[in-house]
Amino acid sequence: MSVAELVDGILNKKRRYLARLISLIEEEDYDAQEVLSQLYRHTGKAHVIGVTGPPGSGKSSLVTKLTAEFRKRSHTVGIICVDPSSPFTGGALLGDRIRMQEHYLDDEVYVRSMGTRGHLGGLSRATSDAVTAIDAFGKDIIFVETVGTGQSEVEVIDIAHTILVTDVPGSGDDIQASKAGIMEIADIFVVNKMDLPGADKKVTEINAMLDLDPREREWRPPVLLTNSRTGDGIPELVEKILEHYKHLTETGLLEKKGLQRSRDELDQLMKYKLTQELSHKLQGRPEYEEAIKLIAKRKKDPYSVAEELIAEFLFSESR
Amino acid sequence: MSVAELVDGILNKKRRYLARLISLIEEEDYDAQEVLSQLYRHTGKAHVIGVTGPPGSGKSSLVTKLTAEFRKRSHTVGIICVDPSSPFTGGALLGDRIRMQEHYLDDEVYVRSMGTRGHLGGLSRATSDAVTAIDAFGKDIIFVETVGTGQSEVEVIDIAHTILVTDVPGSGDDIQASKAGIMEIADIFVVNKMDLPGADKKVTEINAMLDLDPREREWRPPVLLTNSRTGDGIPELVEKILEHYKHLTETGLLEKKGLQRSRDELDQLMKYKLTQELSHKLQGRPEYEEAIKLIAKRKKDPYSVAEELIAEFLFSESR
Repeated sequence: MSVAELVDGILNKKRRYLARLISLIEEEDYDAQEVLSQLYRHTGKAHVIGVTGPPGSGKSSLVTKLTAEFRKRSHTVGIICVDPSSPFTGGALLGDRIRMQEHYLDDEVYVRSMGTRGHLGGLSRATSDAVTAIDAFGKDIIFVETVGTGQSEVEVIDIAHTILVTDVPGSGDDIQASKAGIMEIADIFVVNKMDLPGADKKVTEINAMLDLDPREREWRPPVLLTNSRTGDGIPELVEKILEHYKHLTETGLLEKKGLQRSRDELDQLMKYKLTQELSHKLQGRPEYEEAIKLIAKRKKDPYSVAEELIAEFLFSESR
Repeated sequence: MSVAELVDGILNKKRRYLARLISLIEEEDYDAQEVLSQLYRHTGKAHVIGVTGPPGSGKSSLVTKLTAEFRKRSHTVGIICVDPSSPFTGGALLGDRIRMQEHYLDDEVYVRSMGTRGHLGGLSRATSDAVTAIDAFGKDIIFVETVGTGQSEVEVIDIAHTILVTDVPGSGDDIQASKAGIMEIADIFVVNKMDLPGADKKVTEINAMLDLDPREREWRPPVLLTNSRTGDGIPELVEKILEHYKHLTETGLLEKKGLQRSRDELDQLMKYKLTQELSHKLQGRPEYEEAIKLIAKRKKDPYSVAEELIAEFLFSESR
């Protein structure tokens, strides 16, 4: 498929073109950049919802139930499942197919898994590009769901307008601690599996923690109870998600977030392209290979050599 | 402290100078680079041992016991505890102080915690620099211990000569799966808490998995049983670690690993410096700020703008 065909196919809502573009994104194919560049002006309409929380807190089934509820309200939905701990995408994909089978025949729902290929930084880059692609494809709601709660998840989820942090009754203190970075980014807390003992206690705990937060904020993250098996609490959660989006719009925060995302995206892309170009220039050059040997022998140090090579790279470029 | 004082202090084995340097590394202070550049030729002597595995597999106590055994054999030891999921270093530090109290008064053991400040890529960069600092300080053995088993841990631990992957009896299939990336990098498997039921079964499982590995290799990772509470199996593990190092030396793999690490380090540093310089150049420039606004409004796309700004950056640099 040519760049033009891909752009056309996606704007005409052909699923296999979207699937192909996301594969190109994952493969870091240069064409993907060109397609995304042309699709970009068709984006900015989707409401991006991040979902994170500890393993076992039912994120996947929560997203499935939320999707059903959004579909009832005639919203189209895209879902990106991100697993920073997995270098594989195939396995997760199979799992998704099984769990998402209720939506699998619904043409208005698009599901895609992404794992870490190569460097971690690449995953948040690729996820961001996949959101752009699905946004251009015309989905109203885009879920970005992660498997765990590490720092890498925070980076990946950072592109969302609304962030849900899930938890379950009775989860211990060690989980609390590991979520330190996650708590701060939550827009809505979801205590899932509300039928388990200790659900109300968990709500109280999260609220107590929010009371301790010294930051002034216009939106205090609400804490909602859900059961992603039975669907209890799901309509209320959808209402709250839409309310948050309305809040973002009315307070001008949506515009502010959009500016911040544009800044982050531009910076990320510049860094990405610059280092790609640098690698390309240096690969196989004798003075580069020689320098590596001298560093290994401790005859030179990498800090000085890096300075020298960069100066040379910047200089040679302009001629 | 000046750069010269720091270099002198560290080469003269003054602990507080080492502590100060690692703080500068964490703060991404420019002086740190200068100090490391001067220290670099005094490095390359330490045996770097990575320790990773699922939470609860007793990595910390294993490292504590291994440290005691190495001290018995008159090796000096440095320990870096890395927590990619935590943006904080303070909390972990307190925990380390408690658990490492048996070594706390031993001047030949240096313990340091590192968390994620800002971007994840920064953590593997900072850990690598901290290893360089402790190596120059003269420690014979440097442990790099991580809290979890994600892709970020793989990146951080990648700098080690010998990698221990810990596990415990009875851990389930889901843990197995999440360790996919970790299994491949193991030089030695340690089934800790060998007093728990199922220890032998776990050893058999890991060996069965190794049998399935199609790669030809000169070193088949051995699977050892330990009890990091009682110390059972610890001397045997130390023997195996030293044996692995000997294997690396004799087969020329140590030199090969050294070259690879030099290459990675140089590449990482160049990327780091290049993007630092780019950020510095662009910050606050009107055309950069204007471009961000146009991207947010979808009047321009970040992919093309990134190309333009980079071309300009590379050009303006040489004049």
